[in-house]
Amino acid sequence: MKMSEGVEWGLHCCLALAWLGDDTAVPTATLASAFDVPPHYLNKFLQALVRADILASSAGVKGGFRLAKRPEKITLLDVVTAIEGPEASFRCTEIRRRGAGVTARPSEFAMPCGIAIAMGRADAAWRRELAAQTVADLVKAAPPAGAERMRCWYAPRAR
Amino acid sequence: MKMSEGVEWGLHCCLALAWLGDDTAVPTATLASAFDVPPHYLNKFLQALVRADILASSAGVKGGFRLAKRPEKITLLDVVTAIEGPEASFRCTEIRRRGAGVTARPSEFAMPCGIAIAMGRADAAWRRELAAQTVADLVKAAPPAGAERMRCWYAPRAR
Repeated sequence: MKMSEGVEWGLHCCLALAWLGDDTAVPTATLASAFDVPPHYLNKFLQALVRADILASSAGVKGGFRLAKRPEKITLLDVVTAIEGPEASFRCTEIRRRGAGVTARPSEFAMPCGIAIAMGRADAAWRRELAAQTVADLVKAAPPAGAERMRCWYAPRAR
Repeated sequence: MKMSEGVEWGLHCCLALAWLGDDTAVPTATLASAFDVPPHYLNKFLQALVRADILASSAGVKGGFRLAKRPEKITLLDVVTAIEGPEASFRCTEIRRRGAGVTARPSEFAMPCGIAIAMGRADAAWRRELAAQTVADLVKAAPPAGAERMRCWYAPRAR
């Protein structure tokens, strides 16, 4: 089970945009260059973040991406869900009803499968932990030198 | 992000083997038939569970799979790790060091990336929850009719 690299890229882009501030719209090519990742592939994830109302995009010469809301309003769960989708990592396909299960009374399956419930508890714990952390927390946890360096790196690239 | 169906299959096989008891070794074909899943593909997951010391396999006419230890000693994390591997779902590829990061002082990267730490907290919460639940808990949570039905289904197939 492995997340796409888009989660790492997306979170780093959100952190970089939080560092650069509300007034800065950064094009895909510049963000891709900041992390040395392929622009076309990164853009796919940036568009997913726009659809999830995490980033706002603007067109034109000075266009690009910025955070669509304050960093404390964007949870890690928001970003992960935008990139990976809302589905739980464990998907119950109800194999209990197949094979030996085909002769069971329907009442036996009135309750959800206990295995799905148990796996769902772990998924819920994961989501709770992701929902409890925001992009603002990432800003706080990052070394101040990182923010400063990103701003210096960006300055000559601003349009 | 999606687990392989092997996790669902493996957990159901563990539950079925717990129901059938220590004295019963069940061949792959019978387990596959109990859940109407492809035997060859199921066998791949059963072998992974043997390598993880969750199942024991025996050869011969009366051979097959049984639990290698008591159901309360097998956690859901054991089964998930056996099937999916031990890696965390989020993998940090240190993109902070690339692009804008290549000019940073090494001291800036002395601490692990805050994004990896934050994602690791969620992974740890997920693992804690999986480790806190055992196959014995699945037995307790399942409807008694399920165990009885599995034993009746198996009886004429025992060798």
